[in-house]
Amino acid sequence: MLMKNRVEKVVQKMKQLEISQMLITDPLSIYYLTGKYIDPGERFYALYLRADGNNLYFVNRLFTVEEDLGVEKVWYSDTDHVMDLVASRMDTKSVLGVDKDLPSRFLLPLIEKKAGSGFQNASVTVDETRGCKDSEEQLKMKVVSKINDLAMAEFKKLIQPGATELGMALKMLDIYRNLGAEDYSFEPLVAFGPNCAEGHHSPDHTVLKEGDSVLIDVGCKKDNYCSDMTRTFFYGTCSEEHRKVYETVKNANQMAIAGIRPGMKLKDIDAIARNIISDAGYGPFFTHRLGHFIGLNVHEFGDVSAANEKEAEAGMIFSIEPGIYLPGDVGVRIEDLVVVTENGCERLNFYNKELEIVK
Amino acid sequence: MLMKNRVEKVVQKMKQLEISQMLITDPLSIYYLTGKYIDPGERFYALYLRADGNNLYFVNRLFTVEEDLGVEKVWYSDTDHVMDLVASRMDTKSVLGVDKDLPSRFLLPLIEKKAGSGFQNASVTVDETRGCKDSEEQLKMKVVSKINDLAMAEFKKLIQPGATELGMALKMLDIYRNLGAEDYSFEPLVAFGPNCAEGHHSPDHTVLKEGDSVLIDVGCKKDNYCSDMTRTFFYGTCSEEHRKVYETVKNANQMAIAGIRPGMKLKDIDAIARNIISDAGYGPFFTHRLGHFIGLNVHEFGDVSAANEKEAEAGMIFSIEPGIYLPGDVGVRIEDLVVVTENGCERLNFYNKELEIVK
Repeated sequence: MLMKNRVEKVVQKMKQLEISQMLITDPLSIYYLTGKYIDPGERFYALYLRADGNNLYFVNRLFTVEEDLGVEKVWYSDTDHVMDLVASRMDTKSVLGVDKDLPSRFLLPLIEKKAGSGFQNASVTVDETRGCKDSEEQLKMKVVSKINDLAMAEFKKLIQPGATELGMALKMLDIYRNLGAEDYSFEPLVAFGPNCAEGHHSPDHTVLKEGDSVLIDVGCKKDNYCSDMTRTFFYGTCSEEHRKVYETVKNANQMAIAGIRPGMKLKDIDAIARNIISDAGYGPFFTHRLGHFIGLNVHEFGDVSAANEKEAEAGMIFSIEPGIYLPGDVGVRIEDLVVVTENGCERLNFYNKELEIVK
Repeated sequence: MLMKNRVEKVVQKMKQLEISQMLITDPLSIYYLTGKYIDPGERFYALYLRADGNNLYFVNRLFTVEEDLGVEKVWYSDTDHVMDLVASRMDTKSVLGVDKDLPSRFLLPLIEKKAGSGFQNASVTVDETRGCKDSEEQLKMKVVSKINDLAMAEFKKLIQPGATELGMALKMLDIYRNLGAEDYSFEPLVAFGPNCAEGHHSPDHTVLKEGDSVLIDVGCKKDNYCSDMTRTFFYGTCSEEHRKVYETVKNANQMAIAGIRPGMKLKDIDAIARNIISDAGYGPFFTHRLGHFIGLNVHEFGDVSAANEKEAEAGMIFSIEPGIYLPGDVGVRIEDLVVVTENGCERLNFYNKELEIVK
């Protein structure tokens, strides 16, 4: 059934943008608004929201939707000209809001058929609504993050002589499932030594060596919500330089979290961590934004970056993940999820952040 | 490095469409054309092909691309206005071809900035090139399909008293990996009895019962290529009606495969199977197209459906997967992959198709 509170917030934001109709095509956004999840593959699938409440739900006959969703269903088959059908149900005299991810193969025909008087990426209406988690969602995020904390303790035990990145990664799904998770929220990232300094390294057959950093960036899913956390261990020994790198990243993580207040610009949270890393002389080696929003997707709309002028609001959940990457040498990242509260923020991850040297 | 043969075929097709420039954004298409795979997440990532050969490669600094790809790299950071950068490098006086999946959040700004004199979904140039597999690709498809055949024999052993759909599904990844696959090509579909009649049923805690059909639709990945096969077993007994359903589907599968010839319209292959099922009185219960193309993606551009007027060409690889679904009762689907040859087609799957009643 359409979730009235959530739909109302989206429609309110549509009105602020002076948009009277919108095609929502992100399956997770449709799930968020209706409680119904379908993976449509390459087929067209949409919830059409109108300010006047005459909503529609477009779905291929291949999928089984027997329940009443509180919205008129428009069925089509693989042999129908689906975009003609969709265009025929739009208000051609008004701007049509579309999902940020609506693929060109659907958007260009709608433009050609003049399905709206104009076309606008109106995802912000859904994405900002999704960005502030209600209490049911916050609880699910806490549960799935708790599983991630418990899993990290198990993953640390895999750091053993002869371990390979891929060998460790392949053991993680079972560990998550034994702890009650359903799946990964993303493929686990395990990197040793210089590999930790590569952006988005995929676990390979690299064998663990004395003095290596061991970067573990992992998350799981439960009840459709995603966790995400990073810890960096050292194996055997940790050089003075590597220790300085670690302490700088830890300090950046902790000071950013301590500094979060509702009403503060997201870019100013990024700046807290970035200034600490720059002051320690590692500015050029912190090569990404401080964090990203998370919930039904592991990466949701919204980030904590120098470019984001938006203000933090109670209910927002995002990652705080400063890092320092010295090419060919070492990489350290420490990441927690936090939820913004009325006064500051609450952490969702509690796994230890003090330097751990695994012997 | 740009793969000259493949790029040349794409550019040839661009010229046929009178398109002189094109933004390719599907990461697998970029891999197909360059040998380099990156998962860009929500970030912009594109190979820009031009008929005059002045190609560009747009990539976020977060990703490590040290190798020479034989194309000028245009780097950007998370804090840059990337679509301004992209628009500034386009030929604004010519139509800009775009990927069928280019999201509206990139396409609408390009339209607004008048990055091209018009915009056209030009994916067909890449997709048709990818649709006809070269010999290297055909070999990979045979290997990954062979693994799927071997895995099906193992999956059949999981059909035991007390088995649940989810319990069976959760054991499949290990079986695939032991056989040399890297991952699923899609989440395994396991359904019992009436659940087999639901389109896209997700494995749940349903327990196997005497007389149930057991539908197993599964695939794995190796060397970036995907397999996909379906078999339907029966547990304990098989009623006369269910046997008739099974034999009808098997016949539809076999006759469609036997009928494939290069130069024949894809819709006519669909018709072979559909007529057999209709003649047996089950027409309304074959609710989907006969097949889909497959390769780097499990569902690629192109299908074998009543709507597809295109002709089969040597090198095309697609599924032949007729099915009959009787709601509340039973569902049977039998699916093989085939590659079109100069004279007919060659099957990629060889797992038994005779009715198997597991006791």
